[in-house]
Amino acid sequence: MTFLLPDSSKPMNTERENYKKNGLVYVKNPHLDLMDEDILYHLDLGTKTHNLPAMFGDIKFVCVGGSPNRMKAFAQFMHKELGLEGDSKDMKDICAGTDRYCMYKVGPVLSISHGMGVPSISIMLHELIKLLHHAKCRDVTIIRIGTSGGLGIGPGSVVITDIAVNSFFKPQFELVILDNVVVRSTELDQDLAEELLDCSRQIKDFPTLVGHTMCTYDFYEGQGRLDGALCSFSNEKKLEYLKRAYNAGVRNIEMESTVFAAMCRLCGLKAAVVCVTLLDRLEGDQITASHEVLTEYQQRPQQLISLFIKKRLGL
Amino acid sequence: MTFLLPDSSKPMNTERENYKKNGLVYVKNPHLDLMDEDILYHLDLGTKTHNLPAMFGDIKFVCVGGSPNRMKAFAQFMHKELGLEGDSKDMKDICAGTDRYCMYKVGPVLSISHGMGVPSISIMLHELIKLLHHAKCRDVTIIRIGTSGGLGIGPGSVVITDIAVNSFFKPQFELVILDNVVVRSTELDQDLAEELLDCSRQIKDFPTLVGHTMCTYDFYEGQGRLDGALCSFSNEKKLEYLKRAYNAGVRNIEMESTVFAAMCRLCGLKAAVVCVTLLDRLEGDQITASHEVLTEYQQRPQQLISLFIKKRLGL
Repeated sequence: MTFLLPDSSKPMNTERENYKKNGLVYVKNPHLDLMDEDILYHLDLGTKTHNLPAMFGDIKFVCVGGSPNRMKAFAQFMHKELGLEGDSKDMKDICAGTDRYCMYKVGPVLSISHGMGVPSISIMLHELIKLLHHAKCRDVTIIRIGTSGGLGIGPGSVVITDIAVNSFFKPQFELVILDNVVVRSTELDQDLAEELLDCSRQIKDFPTLVGHTMCTYDFYEGQGRLDGALCSFSNEKKLEYLKRAYNAGVRNIEMESTVFAAMCRLCGLKAAVVCVTLLDRLEGDQITASHEVLTEYQQRPQQLISLFIKKRLGL
Repeated sequence: MTFLLPDSSKPMNTERENYKKNGLVYVKNPHLDLMDEDILYHLDLGTKTHNLPAMFGDIKFVCVGGSPNRMKAFAQFMHKELGLEGDSKDMKDICAGTDRYCMYKVGPVLSISHGMGVPSISIMLHELIKLLHHAKCRDVTIIRIGTSGGLGIGPGSVVITDIAVNSFFKPQFELVILDNVVVRSTELDQDLAEELLDCSRQIKDFPTLVGHTMCTYDFYEGQGRLDGALCSFSNEKKLEYLKRAYNAGVRNIEMESTVFAAMCRLCGLKAAVVCVTLLDRLEGDQITASHEVLTEYQQRPQQLISLFIKKRLGL
């Protein structure tokens, strides 16, 4: 395969402006237009094998989360909430041909799983963004609904992320491209965060707050846990680090928000991160709550997003 | 939760020597012994809820791979190869209570999925290594059987990794722990790699070779692909980077080998990485082979590992 790269970035800027005006999803890759076919390998979809505009053209909301079961449950919940016809139990996984991710469509809502960690979500986002581009979707809002560890807040609290930060509390995402380190901004859409916070005020069953979300590459050592297979630091050092994170504004810790924020921002998608906390990391490391309690916690971001989507749709 | 960290590392070194002599899996975390219970959250197992020595004490081989379906197929294949009784179709997922990973046990062989990317496999490895430790397993060999992109070798080739390298072609794994960057060696067991290469000489159906494996944090930009949602480099720059990787000894590219090598090495597990290549990255970026061809390719590392296990068991 040989592609030509335009040696001027001007056409792309003009194109971006057009996309912005039209509300289209912006793919920042001049090679794509030169491809005869685009196989979205990890979604088991493609431009020649599927009519992507017909399948996805009406999408306005994309919700992503780590667990396939949770994203199926969210799709079934939205089916009920939007009052759609048919049995939500028969809902078909659009990516059934692969076990890397699962995907469900409920009216204008797409629900997709992304696995755990930055690399896993980044593969999905590359292919999802290309899908939205090929399908000519307009004015798409994308929200990650996830689980996380809390910092200084009660388990079950829902955190709307204002800024995603790395392990050094910086609003940056670093990626190595052809052995150059590229640094990208992890700013999220502040208006969308505000709108979600407004919605949350109508829900009295659980606390919702706005704060920084720290994204790490490891669940154990990388989040200062004492209960991994490897640990070389003391409880005192752990608490000192977590308290510094708290003082820097961090209210929860997860493993996908920085790359999610960076990629959505570059591609003109209005993005938000809404995670429930399963424990308070200042109190411990192990997730000891019962299955029932954890299941109820995980429904909280879904409730908030459902309210938001219904408001946006004028229902 | 409060843990005490021994202020001297001497007892741990003595302990490690004992572990080595006994062939036990080495957990390098003094806090673990002080815990009343250990919940392996992402595996849905625990020391109080499960009799781990009874369930897993006889494990000698652990095989890990990204895709849940592939690791189930491998378990079913090993069931047949080891001539075990019962119907392999009824095989139960030991981690059925969670959808993060799947796990199957076939005699002394454990088959586990790990999802995609360094963070996803690292969560599984922390919990797997603790599981092997709690179950008092001895003389365990662990092998990652995966898929990868090849460099200068034909699609369908099987690569046995001698050294896992990062995006800068260095045999290092970097992790941020309490905002310190920790660098770990990614050396793999050379005797095991030799033994696997020996086994491969008995298989004439596909080529197997030994080479460096490059591990990246991204499938698209991070591997120099021109077909992601984002791409800011030319085909010439891409090929220049991939050729430099080839000249540094890299024969395939995947997304888990560095952390796999680093963690197994620290915990005294003899580890190998055996991946099939789905395409030659010097020829293109998209995976265009048919489903049937890709399925056959993915069986190749399984065939090799089956032969190796049967030899080790004297079958």
